[in-house]
Amino acid sequence: MELGSVIKKNSTKLLLIVLDGLGGLPVENNSTELEIAKTPNLDKLARISALGMHIPVDVGITPGSGPGHLGIFGYDPVKYQIGRGILEALGLGLEVKDTDIAIRGNYATVERQNGKIIVKDRRAGRISTDENRRITQKLARAVQKIDDVELILSPGMEHRFALILRFPYPLPEGSEQIGDTDPQREGYEPITPYGKNESSEKVAKVVRKFLAITENVLKDEPRANYVLLRGFSQKPKIESFLERFGLKACAIATYPMYRGLASLVGMDVIKLEGSSIKDELKALKDVWENYDYFFLHIKKTDSYGEDGNWRGKVEVIEEFDSLLPEFLSLKPDVLVITGDHSTPSVLKGHSWHPVPVLLHSPYVLGGTCERFTERECLKGELGMFPAEKLMNLMLAHSLRLAKYGA
Amino acid sequence: MELGSVIKKNSTKLLLIVLDGLGGLPVENNSTELEIAKTPNLDKLARISALGMHIPVDVGITPGSGPGHLGIFGYDPVKYQIGRGILEALGLGLEVKDTDIAIRGNYATVERQNGKIIVKDRRAGRISTDENRRITQKLARAVQKIDDVELILSPGMEHRFALILRFPYPLPEGSEQIGDTDPQREGYEPITPYGKNESSEKVAKVVRKFLAITENVLKDEPRANYVLLRGFSQKPKIESFLERFGLKACAIATYPMYRGLASLVGMDVIKLEGSSIKDELKALKDVWENYDYFFLHIKKTDSYGEDGNWRGKVEVIEEFDSLLPEFLSLKPDVLVITGDHSTPSVLKGHSWHPVPVLLHSPYVLGGTCERFTERECLKGELGMFPAEKLMNLMLAHSLRLAKYGA
Repeated sequence: MELGSVIKKNSTKLLLIVLDGLGGLPVENNSTELEIAKTPNLDKLARISALGMHIPVDVGITPGSGPGHLGIFGYDPVKYQIGRGILEALGLGLEVKDTDIAIRGNYATVERQNGKIIVKDRRAGRISTDENRRITQKLARAVQKIDDVELILSPGMEHRFALILRFPYPLPEGSEQIGDTDPQREGYEPITPYGKNESSEKVAKVVRKFLAITENVLKDEPRANYVLLRGFSQKPKIESFLERFGLKACAIATYPMYRGLASLVGMDVIKLEGSSIKDELKALKDVWENYDYFFLHIKKTDSYGEDGNWRGKVEVIEEFDSLLPEFLSLKPDVLVITGDHSTPSVLKGHSWHPVPVLLHSPYVLGGTCERFTERECLKGELGMFPAEKLMNLMLAHSLRLAKYGA
Repeated sequence: MELGSVIKKNSTKLLLIVLDGLGGLPVENNSTELEIAKTPNLDKLARISALGMHIPVDVGITPGSGPGHLGIFGYDPVKYQIGRGILEALGLGLEVKDTDIAIRGNYATVERQNGKIIVKDRRAGRISTDENRRITQKLARAVQKIDDVELILSPGMEHRFALILRFPYPLPEGSEQIGDTDPQREGYEPITPYGKNESSEKVAKVVRKFLAITENVLKDEPRANYVLLRGFSQKPKIESFLERFGLKACAIATYPMYRGLASLVGMDVIKLEGSSIKDELKALKDVWENYDYFFLHIKKTDSYGEDGNWRGKVEVIEEFDSLLPEFLSLKPDVLVITGDHSTPSVLKGHSWHPVPVLLHSPYVLGGTCERFTERECLKGELGMFPAEKLMNLMLAHSLRLAKYGA
């Protein structure tokens, strides 16, 4: 059900700690990363908390970071989709506004043949990130505005970059409906972008002008002499945390993508000094009095999982465990520790497996699990539930949901 | 969510073994059939596999064989419904085509009273199956074609038969909308069939001609001197396994109904020599190189359950267990062992109880269950999930689902 009618406010504080890619599979001695890690503090907390598993998007579905986070933020990740261009821009630390069209770009190598432009290398030989920076800067200097549209360019890894077209006025829905210019195959011409409706054709016109300027600016580059554009997207219309849950929310995260995702749902993104868990804890303490809801994101569990480095993942879990008492000393009314999806080291990537959840609050049964591990969470009182319902549980345990019906 | 956008292909092999009506309830010493059975091979497999329970249609709902199988094949059994006439025809081993109307028939006894035809016995005194065969043959010989419509008749058990009207052209949707001719009560006249729209009236016209001929052919029969028709139905429009999941699929089943159900979703039905589990295993080995997905159906667990013969059901489970190592020797990338529904011997019929599921793959936790029984499956890592999601799990564990979102 929609929560709107039962949301109420109080002065409780809700803390969501996301260890990215937390869940795993056996890596040694039939034990998972969470089982191998020495976690005396988590163990102690698990025995008096409510445990369970969440299913990020659907049974068997492996989520990207976008859908993974939207779920645990309480938004249906199938209903709310974040365009590729938006994610790319957020991942590079760009701010995205309601008046923006965000686009993923590739530098490419093209050749002129009989007056035609033919794509020879869709990735410009995977130029170095440094070369990318130089070229992007050159391009950004050459094209800052087209008509009344501001252009924001940001270099990514290797051949990738993000482009934002910032219009001086809000764009109607559907303004991003422009086909990719990338022909997806080498030996073909880039596709000229046209809008599929009146408002997107307005955007496409700017894109065509951008491409013409780009062609000229890059023409003497040995490799990156062209750009291909994909994933035209608008900032999704998502109710903010305050509107939806009545929560003044903030995000503490070191990676741009997660800071961006949090900002999409209206969380304030806290400035950080340093990128360790300790630094994040310090930032949390600094703003503890100012918010109702705190999203704290720990990236390295996922990074090591993706690398297949299970020992690294174990160490991050142990590092977090050692700091847990300090998190508890803030006395959050509801503390949840979970992941946005599983990243088993044996799979070296995100997976579809349900994700361990620990919910600490005075209003739980407890006593069902000995530790905070995948297998122990299966015995927990929260059972297995869709990620989207995690917010219901956090709000309920903070007594922020009124009775439904008389 | 719809899987379409994340389906990908690879060379993995998926094996679904369905022990029909597998789940049970305590029959002796508070133990179920699965608990009583000596299953050393299943026990061993259970310890290293992912276990859980599936809910065939909905909580508390007892499924027929059609919905039961559609669910574990990954189709919503409430959305996709198979008409009674189609099921009857499939059950008798008839092929059903897109141009067909399939109908369930009863032989009945009628009497003429003042020029009216009155149903005296809706089942013609439950004539023997042999007598049914004789009468159906006589009828089939007399009426092979009406206008351009081919008629296919097949005798069933006792008074039942199936009739297929095969048109020379595809029929529009709704062509099966014709009311039953069976008045459902004795002492009443049979109902003359009329179509509810233009295309079904075309069909009804053929049916009325068939009834007139039948009346004449059967008029001297002592008991089966009339037919009543029910469940007019068209072959349902169902995406094939290949379209929906990208899987080249085949079915190994001894009973016509299950062979027919599999063919409805586009599986190739493999020819069998013999009807034992061993014969099915041999057929599986023979075609192992030719398909991606294999549905192997074992009927007798359900048959004994329906008879209330729990010892018989235990023996079938033990027989399957003894052959399990041979199934494993094929090295399927994903092996699932489950039922289409429960058939507890104490209920002598299908039931609504969740059905044990065992999923074997390298990408599972394992170590949560000691045996493959109802009570042990409750501790499993798959939890309790809708049958329809079993395909998601099989596809995910065979790495055939791409990441959703970035």
